Amino acid sequence: MKNPDIDGLMGRYCNHLNKLLSIQINMSIYLTALLKCKAGEAAQVKPLLLDLVAASLKEEACLQYELYQDIENENQFIFHETWQDAAGLELHTQQPHYQQFGQQVGPLLEEAPVLHKTQRIG
Amino acid sequence: MKNPDIDGLMGRYCNHLNKLLSIQINMSIYLTALLKCKAGEAAQVKPLLLDLVAASLKEEACLQYELYQDIENENQFIFHETWQDAAGLELHTQQPHYQQFGQQVGPLLEEAPVLHKTQRIG
Repeated sequence: MKNPDIDGLMGRYCNHLNKLLSIQINMSIYLTALLKCKAGEAAQVKPLLLDLVAASLKEEACLQYELYQDIENENQFIFHETWQDAAGLELHTQQPHYQQFGQQVGPLLEEAPVLHKTQRIG
Repeated sequence: MKNPDIDGLMGRYCNHLNKLLSIQINMSIYLTALLKCKAGEAAQVKPLLLDLVAASLKEEACLQYELYQDIENENQFIFHETWQDAAGLELHTQQPHYQQFGQQVGPLLEEAPVLHKTQRIG
């Protein structure tokens, strides 16, 4: 025996649950990446970083890709990136432009880049 | 002798020059601040950080004040802030809510916060 009221209630409950799960599963990833280049290499590194910004912004899962340079230390660069989800970020690291960037910029860096995968909480 | 054409031209030139100077002088400051709290203190620190976000957003020179938490290390927090200009950021550090925050959160931190004053370049 079917009860339309209960069926309707359960339907709405399931929709709500699916939406919550979808938000969890598809949660955006906010990446803050800090790159410090060797002294004297900032002018050489900057166009490589800008090329990476342009290529990354064309990726479907890329929602934001901004580049900043420290005012007090020209060798310090910071990316603020937003990715649709963890899978999109993973795909980014497999792109030819990302791989090529790593090879080109690697020898010009003072230390390994510091990457923070984050969630926005405020 | 006044020449209305030349006066008009000079007026427009001066307005343009003032605008360019104003952009230079009032250049926005983008601050990336990294705070790492002691192990086990994240839940204690989080509301203090959120209070700072709310109070800072009320400051006139504050254009953006976002808070992120590292997915892989709950003790690592990151602020992305945009300030109208250097003077506005300086004023921020003198606010009672900023000073109080420093006193409250200081003993809960693993290490001194890392602050990067930056310009957006891409």
